[in-house]
Amino acid sequence: GKFGERWFDICKAYSVDVKAIDVEWGHAVSPEAVEKALNEDPKIKAVYIQASETSTGIYHPVKEIADIIKTRENTILIVDAITALGVVDLPQDEWCLDVVLTGSQKALMLPPGLAFASLSDKAWGFVEKSTLPRYYFDFKKEKKSLGKNQNAYTPNVQLIVGLREILKEIKEEGLEKVFERHGSLANATRLAVQAMGLKLYTVDEPSNALTAVWAPEGIDAGKITKLIREKYGITIAGGQDAAKGRIFRIAHLGYAGCFDVITAISALEAVLKELGYKFELCSGLKAAQKALFGE
Amino acid sequence: GKFGERWFDICKAYSVDVKAIDVEWGHAVSPEAVEKALNEDPKIKAVYIQASETSTGIYHPVKEIADIIKTRENTILIVDAITALGVVDLPQDEWCLDVVLTGSQKALMLPPGLAFASLSDKAWGFVEKSTLPRYYFDFKKEKKSLGKNQNAYTPNVQLIVGLREILKEIKEEGLEKVFERHGSLANATRLAVQAMGLKLYTVDEPSNALTAVWAPEGIDAGKITKLIREKYGITIAGGQDAAKGRIFRIAHLGYAGCFDVITAISALEAVLKELGYKFELCSGLKAAQKALFGE
Repeated sequence: GKFGERWFDICKAYSVDVKAIDVEWGHAVSPEAVEKALNEDPKIKAVYIQASETSTGIYHPVKEIADIIKTRENTILIVDAITALGVVDLPQDEWCLDVVLTGSQKALMLPPGLAFASLSDKAWGFVEKSTLPRYYFDFKKEKKSLGKNQNAYTPNVQLIVGLREILKEIKEEGLEKVFERHGSLANATRLAVQAMGLKLYTVDEPSNALTAVWAPEGIDAGKITKLIREKYGITIAGGQDAAKGRIFRIAHLGYAGCFDVITAISALEAVLKELGYKFELCSGLKAAQKALFGE
Repeated sequence: GKFGERWFDICKAYSVDVKAIDVEWGHAVSPEAVEKALNEDPKIKAVYIQASETSTGIYHPVKEIADIIKTRENTILIVDAITALGVVDLPQDEWCLDVVLTGSQKALMLPPGLAFASLSDKAWGFVEKSTLPRYYFDFKKEKKSLGKNQNAYTPNVQLIVGLREILKEIKEEGLEKVFERHGSLANATRLAVQAMGLKLYTVDEPSNALTAVWAPEGIDAGKITKLIREKYGITIAGGQDAAKGRIFRIAHLGYAGCFDVITAISALEAVLKELGYKFELCSGLKAAQKALFGE
């Protein structure tokens, strides 16, 4: 997906010698492909992966890939968990994830402005040896400042204050309940769009953070997202890059609740009807209702 | 000062071949020294400067240095205007400043989280040719997105909304009035501390954003800032790096008004008295009062 490709572009920008494992959009990477690449070139220092690939709605097999990497001394696993952390369980220490990254604006339910990185001891060893150019994003400097309970540079103070409140809320709900809620919302959304005769874009395991769906034959996905926003004030996302115009994406992470799914499916039904898609009205809602509240 | 040294460190971090013009802390750089350096090495691509050097309270002669650089085709002037923009007049086009930078948390009166860069046509030419590594801070990508009235990446939305309000406020007050107000607050602060028998840290032109002052002989500046914060809830800054423990710094930019100066001077008098400094109580306040409100 787009964000997998971005890892590649970022490495390239810093002259890192990088090898991409090409995966068709909508598919997950296979752990075997990662293992094969590492066996072919044992000098590979880091494997970059998205846990939840937001552009395609795929959940990549993070645990299985971590199992391959954890025994290799010279390789670390760097996980973009931006739309995964706080949505699904990603136990960093237990699974041996070396770097886990997220942002404030997804499951942490804050405005954009904070990025988070959590490093394993193995990853800290790599930081010590790294010679790539950086100034403000220098983990060594940040670690030194954290030791004094400070930031190396002026932080986004108001978001840190907000974060404390969010973490209290998450703690109160309980992580297991949070993961369960997201799983249930994702399941209801997937069943609802399929009941409407639509096809999921994700071929392999879908991410619980969002649902990516093929637009019906002959209807531009951009028209769906535009109409749903302009007419009903509801924002769903279109496709990016290779999937542009072909898919739409419904998010259900963070503070989303069951009635957000009901609302999104209801509006989607209204808009698809208006755009001439033939389906049984209320079929999506019925499936969502059943999935969320039982029969 | 510290931020001048930071330009040097940032260049070094990116393997830029960089030459520092050493200036004693508390002094401004002389335009002649810049001209000499440029004449000695006409291949120098960029001159980096702080307009207001926050660590020492100095205002560097930006206009005079810009006059030297503007006729040189192969050199641009990059101005860190973080505590200067919105405090003093820095007409970018008129003075031929090639890159002007600021942040949201100073004269723009917002929380930290936004950085601003404004580039001249000459600077855009340099961007086109630059090969230094970068990904997220890529001006070319941002320019392309700006053309579509978008950001290249997820921006700090809530601060941009806040910025619109702040800019309305500044427009309403009028830039000239804003500069006048800061000049008046700076003048009152400088006169007040000098009336208390204290010495300004700035040897050359002081910045109107803040006033840097030598702590009295025998009193650690850290004690002054600590006591004033703990006892009166007023935050003034200590010295950084070379000036640590030796100076304190009173800010008067952004939304500061005349009674912020009165409050700061009053608290400073109380704290210095407590720490055993001999001076005439109310001498600072009297000078500030006179400067702010006339006789």
